[in-house]
Formats: sequence, structure tokens, C-alpha cells
Amino acid sequence: MANETWSTKSWTLTELSQILGGEVFGDGNLVITAPATAKSSNPNGLAFAESAEYLEIAAHSGVGAVIVPLSTQNFSKPTIQHEAPRKAFGALLHLFQTPYLLTESIHPTAIIHESATIHPSAKVGAYAIVEANAIIAEGAEIFPHAYIGENCAVGMYSKVLPHAVLLRKVTLGSHCEVGPGAVLGHSGFGYYWNGEKHVAIPHVGGVEIQDHVDIGALTAIDRATADNTTIQEGSKMDNLVQIAHNVDLGAHSVLASQVGIAGSTVIGKGNVSGGQSGYAAHLVIADGVSLAGRTAALSSIEKPGVYGGIPAMPIREYRRNLVVQKELGSVMQRLKELEKEVERLKGELS
Amino acid sequence: MANETWSTKSWTLTELSQILGGEVFGDGNLVITAPATAKSSNPNGLAFAESAEYLEIAAHSGVGAVIVPLSTQNFSKPTIQHEAPRKAFGALLHLFQTPYLLTESIHPTAIIHESATIHPSAKVGAYAIVEANAIIAEGAEIFPHAYIGENCAVGMYSKVLPHAVLLRKVTLGSHCEVGPGAVLGHSGFGYYWNGEKHVAIPHVGGVEIQDHVDIGALTAIDRATADNTTIQEGSKMDNLVQIAHNVDLGAHSVLASQVGIAGSTVIGKGNVSGGQSGYAAHLVIADGVSLAGRTAALSSIEKPGVYGGIPAMPIREYRRNLVVQKELGSVMQRLKELEKEVERLKGELS
Amino acid sequence: MANETWSTKSWTLTELSQILGGEVFGDGNLVITAPATAKSSNPNGLAFAESAEYLEIAAHSGVGAVIVPLSTQNFSKPTIQHEAPRKAFGALLHLFQTPYLLTESIHPTAIIHESATIHPSAKVGAYAIVEANAIIAEGAEIFPHAYIGENCAVGMYSKVLPHAVLLRKVTLGSHCEVGPGAVLGHSGFGYYWNGEKHVAIPHVGGVEIQDHVDIGALTAIDRATADNTTIQEGSKMDNLVQIAHNVDLGAHSVLASQVGIAGSTVIGKGNVSGGQSGYAAHLVIADGVSLAGRTAALSSIEKPGVYGGIPAMPIREYRRNLVVQKELGSVMQRLKELEKEVERLKGELS
Repeated sequence: MANETWSTKSWTLTELSQILGGEVFGDGNLVITAPATAKSSNPNGLAFAESAEYLEIAAHSGVGAVIVPLSTQNFSKPTIQHEAPRKAFGALLHLFQTPYLLTESIHPTAIIHESATIHPSAKVGAYAIVEANAIIAEGAEIFPHAYIGENCAVGMYSKVLPHAVLLRKVTLGSHCEVGPGAVLGHSGFGYYWNGEKHVAIPHVGGVEIQDHVDIGALTAIDRATADNTTIQEGSKMDNLVQIAHNVDLGAHSVLASQVGIAGSTVIGKGNVSGGQSGYAAHLVIADGVSLAGRTAALSSIEKPGVYGGIPAMPIREYRRNLVVQKELGSVMQRLKELEKEVERLKGELS
Repeated sequence: MANETWSTKSWTLTELSQILGGEVFGDGNLVITAPATAKSSNPNGLAFAESAEYLEIAAHSGVGAVIVPLSTQNFSKPTIQHEAPRKAFGALLHLFQTPYLLTESIHPTAIIHESATIHPSAKVGAYAIVEANAIIAEGAEIFPHAYIGENCAVGMYSKVLPHAVLLRKVTLGSHCEVGPGAVLGHSGFGYYWNGEKHVAIPHVGGVEIQDHVDIGALTAIDRATADNTTIQEGSKMDNLVQIAHNVDLGAHSVLASQVGIAGSTVIGKGNVSGGQSGYAAHLVIADGVSLAGRTAALSSIEKPGVYGGIPAMPIREYRRNLVVQKELGSVMQRLKELEKEVERLKGELS
Repeated sequence: MANETWSTKSWTLTELSQILGGEVFGDGNLVITAPATAKSSNPNGLAFAESAEYLEIAAHSGVGAVIVPLSTQNFSKPTIQHEAPRKAFGALLHLFQTPYLLTESIHPTAIIHESATIHPSAKVGAYAIVEANAIIAEGAEIFPHAYIGENCAVGMYSKVLPHAVLLRKVTLGSHCEVGPGAVLGHSGFGYYWNGEKHVAIPHVGGVEIQDHVDIGALTAIDRATADNTTIQEGSKMDNLVQIAHNVDLGAHSVLASQVGIAGSTVIGKGNVSGGQSGYAAHLVIADGVSLAGRTAALSSIEKPGVYGGIPAMPIREYRRNLVVQKELGSVMQRLKELEKEVERLKGELS
């Protein structure tokens, strides 16, 4: 019953119970047009609830139906009882997902340099530009207004979303996604003082993005002085992230929004960096290191584990540090009083 | 005497005194072509000065004329004496303001999908793109290079400035402004590990921007997993702000530059967040909470008030914390000395 | 032997030794196609190594040849022995550098307002837009998709890279570079509460960028309330930087990525601001002040020097502060124990 336009995808509750597994209680003919949260007001939305708290929220919200645990009793709305509601909801999200689509092969307004190579199955959207020596591989999609600069390559089935810029010498692996407005391949930030003014150090290297990497909206990844700035396979980064020249980010890492990594820092595999955290330049960070949000790594980290704070310290110390911060205002006062007291005691004893 | 091009708007000082209220002293025929600051070098600029300090600055700068308090004596330049100089200057700014204007209805290079709906009074600029099922309401203006994606709606009299992207399923209320390069409706940042690699959680929700919301340049607002990421009416945000999926920002809130709000956090009405402050994920922040610049809210906040620091603490505690930070280097030393001293005293007493 | 396409620039090692100075040891006919790092795997790359550590790395990597100090002994690869390897490598980078180039004068898809002035030697790329009263000076280059708004001026030999926006009343000096996606001239962020909602304060000023300024990708510089937001000559800023309305940044300053400067703050000459550092509004910062990464200047700074921390303190204090942070978790415990101990001692003495 689903049709091809994502905005109108729909199934009945009974159909969904057959797709997702589970058993319907209540009106199985209810038409579901969207996944929803427990507090949604959408009468055709399907949410999930695993705890008493969320069952309560869903019971009183406007949501149409709920995926609930097995043997949930006396629930006032149509449900799918399922052994793993959260997992079923995940499958529901996949069901309703629709990819970004380019409808034409190469839009007549796209400007492709004569030396560029575009695979016949690739697509290039309206007002997109593909410059000299660029290569667009099989199944790749360049969305409207994107700019693929000289000597850039977009790998198989990768997507470059609207307004993204691959400026120069950027190689994108397969199955990557570059978010709207992201800028890859801009010159690294390095200058020397010639006695009179700052002179830019030429950045003649590139950017290597390996397979299955996602890059958020408005994220910047600079090209290297020499060789490449490298994002290893499977890494994901959120919006407004800064990756400086010659950084090497390990495979399967996850960078939350507004993270910054300064020049030439090498980060191991499986890194997780919380929002607004950052790394100083020229550090070496071991595999399996994670930073809590807002953490600043000011020196290299050799042991895997979770770190937090300014400067980065093991998370356990950071948690204690956070507790003390709130009492810090009183510390100086207490210290002064103790010093006075001890001075007095010394006087009495002399 | 003002003409229609903002760059050449001008009035004489006398004309301005009639418009703004107040009385001219000195040359009323002086032509004013721009509001100016007290230290301006513009001989046709009109500044304001309320304090002795700023009167002094204005007297010695190159600015042409000054709005001053009533009965200001012996001032060397033409003035408008006014009972509320700052307020009069605010009115002057409004007088010289000119809106961004699109000159044509729909620019011939704009690309509008056949299923999109554009109100006859709306305008669409050069190289702008409006995708499938998008709706552009009465009086709305889509500026050059803007991208209005599938299933997006732009409300009445809203402006989408150059290079802004509404990627998918973004609903903009009336009288909103989206800054240049802002990206709304990109996928939220969520992954699960399938044992082999990170897999993106589909984000099938949207973004709801209510009426009278301003969004800064290069700000990112992600779409929800399900339902909407919501910015309630009258809220204003500065440049380079990050709003993650499923955030709900209360009405009439003000977010300064580089603020980040992590996923699913709900913020009450009248929030004010200082520059570079941030919120962890899944928090609930009460109405009337403000954060000082650089603050990190790591847990929910139930009481209205101003908070500061990492972690966020009541502003009074934070101010004491800031004072102690500068002395912290000596604390360990003093603590060690005290411990030694007390140990010695104990020895003497035993 | 070098040809004109940067992607295929090449010289033999002997040719390079003649250009850079120094003496070849080993195969002088080796063709060098790129500067490289010591750890590169490029057999036609030329790296430099000054220390035993880097000589070791280069000896075991795949890099083809190395610039080494005079009288380096027994090195296994072709080398250029040079009295200053790092300096020679810098010259090598300049040799391989190629400027961004626009091939046509004014691309047929560029849209130029009839009131705009374009110097005959200037170039305007595909889909770029130049609005009313804009001026593009001699040798200036406006890259594809760039937007030059009303009353903007681009100085001699300045480059505005793809997707950059000069929204309104932005004056760019000569020899500047504006990075991809940067937004200059958006309205400053200021509102007043009218009892019912936030009302925008009109920003009728502009942005003045003086000569030899570089602006990073996705950096935002807002226009002033009145007069100009000013970036003085020779200053350089990295990606994702925020400069608010009416800021005045001193000459030859260097701002690393994700720095934020709040409204009306005046910063002296020769400033260096580390990554993710920030300045509160309305501060006055002396000439010659630098901030370490992540520092927050919350009040004016009168003395030149390096500062760090939150709030900014002299770097020496900050370094001690950083050391204490890691021990802070134990401070409260030790303080409590001391208080108990002193109380006990007092009891014994009374």
C-alpha cells in the first residue's frame, strides 16, 4: 500500500505488524503515515514506548498508535505488541526513509569541464559545477549548487549535498555523504612572518576521505601542506566541525557538532568526541579514546578510555572535578580561615 | 529629501530633529547621510552621546553631528538636544534602514519544480531552486542561490537570504529570516553500531520554525528523527549556531553565536544563551533560564535564573568560581603547607 | 621541465637542488612530482627531515627523497643536503603551489547588475552574482557561485572563493582572500524587547576588510550597527570564526578556527587567538595580546602578553591552573580533613 513519494508513504497498523513482527491490539485498519514520538499529536503517527513513563505520555498525547512491550495491559490506543519496541521502531524509521533523489542524469544547467569524467550512471544537479580533471564515479550524486573543484574525485554511490564545496584535490571514497554547505579542500591555515607581514605557507596537499564517511553540514576539512588530510573509513562527523590540515582521523570515529581538531593531530580508531570538544595541534591520540563534550585535549593521550575537562583528564577525575567546581567559590575562604586558625594555634603553642 | 536608494538616503539635521523630536543647536542645514558612532570620521554622520566620556569622544572625532542630552552646554559641533538620545538614535537607525529587496517576481534563472506552489506576490531570486511540493507563501522572498528542498514551506513575508538551504521537510512560519548560508533540515546525527560499522538512524521528521524567528548566517538546524525539531515563535539566533535533531527551543529565546544544543533537549521560553555556550543531549531546561557565555549545561535546570560555568551553576557561584580560578595555582601549594603545619602541630601536642 | 598544470608539475632532484640550493647525493634523475611529509608513501615525493627522529621516519617510509642537513651520513635514499632543510622545503612548497584560476573573463552565466562596475582585468566565474553598485577592481577574481551584494567593493587582486557571500556594504581591500562559504556583511545580532517581542536593531553600517586579509571558510563577519566592523590590514583568520558587529581587529592578527569575538570589542595589533577562544562584548584588548586555545576573555586586557583560561589569566598562572585542575577532585577532601584536624587540635588546646 506504500507508494513511491515519501511524503505519502503509508501502511495500516496490521500491515506494519506483519512487516515489523508483533501483534496488533485495537484498530488494525488505522492508517499510519509517519513514525512519531510518544508525545506527538499526529493521529496517524506510530510511536514506541518501553517504560511506564513513556506509556503514560503516549496514552495522553495525540499520537495514533504505539509499539509496546509484550503483554502490555489496558492501553487505551491501538498498539503493536512487540518483544523489542525500540528495535521495531528503528525498523519503522528505515521503512519510512526515502533517499535524496536527483531526477535527471545531468541537469542542463550543470557546468562540467571538458576534462572531467562523469560515469554514465552518475547524476549532477542544477547549477552544480564540476571543474577540470574531476572524476564522478558510478552512481555518485552531485546535488544542486554543489561545487566539485579541480582534481577532485567523488567515489561510487557517494552524495554531495546542495551547496557543498570540494575545492581542490579532494578524494572522496565510496558511499560517503557530504552535508549541505560543507567545505572540503580549502587551504590549511599556516603562515610565517617575513618581518613585515604574515605570508601564507602553500598547501599543495589534498584531502582523502575514505569509504562510508559522513560529513555534516557546514563542516570544514582543510587540505594538507603536503600529502593528505585523512578521514579514515566509516567515520562520521556532525555539523560545524573543523578539521585542520594534515589531521589523520582514525576509522569509525564519531565527532559531534562544533568539534575542532588542530593541525597535524593524529587520532586513533574508534574515537568519539563530544560536542564542542577540541584537540591542540601535533597531538597523537591512541585508538579507543573518547572525549566528553567541551573537553580540550592539550597533550597526547596514550591510553584508551574516556576523558573529560580542560585539560583532558580521565573521566573519573573529571567527574570529581565537576563536583568541586560548584564549591570552588568557598575554597579560598575556607583555606584562608584554616591558615589563620593554624597561625593562631602555632602562637598558642610557642 | 530622502530618496529611495538606501545608499543615498539623507536628511538635514533640522529635518531629522523634526522627525526624531528634539531641538537643533548649530548648523541645521548640515546634511546627514548616515547614523554613526561617536568616534566616527564621517563629517555627514550623526552619532549619539549620553555620557561625559562619549561627549568627549564625539567632540574630538570627525563625526559631523551628535544627538545629546537636553541642556548640554558648550558643545563644539552641531547637535540635536533630545530627552533620550539613545532612543532617538534607535529611531534614526530605523529611518536609514532599507530592506533586502528582490527586484523581479521570479527571476528567469530560478528553477521551480512543477509541483511547487508559489504565491503570486512572492519573489524568487536568480539561481534559486524550489523543489517538489514546496510552498512559498504571500510576500515571501527567496534570495539568489537559496535552495528550498522537497516538502518545505516558507511562510508569509519570510526571507530566505542568499545561499541558505532548506533541505527537506522544513516549515518556516511568517516574518522569519534565514541568514546567508544557514542549513535547515539536514539529517540529525545519530548512528548505531551494527558490529561492523556505524549505520545512520533515518531521520524522517522535519523542522518547524514558528513565526518571527530569525536564524543567523551559517547556522545549522537538523531535522528530527520523528516529529519536528522546533523553534518556537519570536526566537532569534546568531551565526554558527548548532541545533540538533528533536530540540525544542522555547518562544522568544535568544541564542548568541556558536551556541550548540544537543539532541532532544527541550528549552523553555525566554531563554538567553551567551556565545559559545552549550547544552548536553536530552535535558529539560525551565522557562526563564539564561546561560552566560561559554557555559555548559550538563544536566537539566529546573529553576529560572542566570547560570554560568562548566558545569552550569547559579551565576553568583560562577562569579566566585571565576575569581578563584585565577588563584587556583596557589591553592595546592597552600594546602600542602597547611597539611605539613598541622602535622607538625600534632607532633608537638602528642 | 615544469609544465603549466599544477597536477603535473615536476622536476628532477638535480634540478630542484639547483633551484633550492644544496647538493644532491644519490640518484639526481629521480623525478619529483610533489612535496611530501617524511612518512609519505609517495616514491616521487620530496620531504625534509632535520632531526634524527624524522630522518629515521623518512628512511623507513615510502617517500622518494629527502632534504637533509649538511653532512648527513649513510642515508639510504636520494637526498639534497641543505644548510636549512625546513627553509628549502618552504621554497619547494612555493614552487609547487598554483593559484586558483578563473579561465574566462566574465562567465556567460555570471549575473552582473547594470550599475555594477567591473574592471576589464577582473574575472567573474560561473553562476556568480554581482549586485547593484558593486565594484570589482583590477585583477580581482570572483569565483563560481559567489555572491557580491549591493554596495560591496572587492579590491585589487582579491579573490572571493566559491560560495562566499558579501551580503551588503562590504569593502574588501587589495590582495585579500575570502574562503569558500564565508559570509560577510550579514546583519549584526542586536534586538530590543518591545514588551511583546524582540525587535531587530537595524544594522545600517558595513564591513571594512583592509589589504592582505585572509578569511577562512565558513567564517562570518557581521556588518556594523553604524560605521564599520573592521578587520585591519594583514590579519588572517581560519575557518568557522565569528566576528560580531562593530568589532575592530588590529593589524596583522591571527585568529585560529572557531574563535568568536562579540559585539563592539576592539582588539589591538598583532593579536594571536588560539582555536575556540573567545572575547566577550565591549572589551578593549591591548596590542600584542595572545590567547591560548579555548581561552575566554571576559574583561578588557591592558598588558601585552599571552593569556589562557576561563577567565583569561596570564599564561603562567594558567599553566599552574591546568596542573591543579587534575588534582581538584582531591582538594575538597583534603580541605575537609584539615578542618577536622584543626578543630581537634583546637579542642586539645582549650
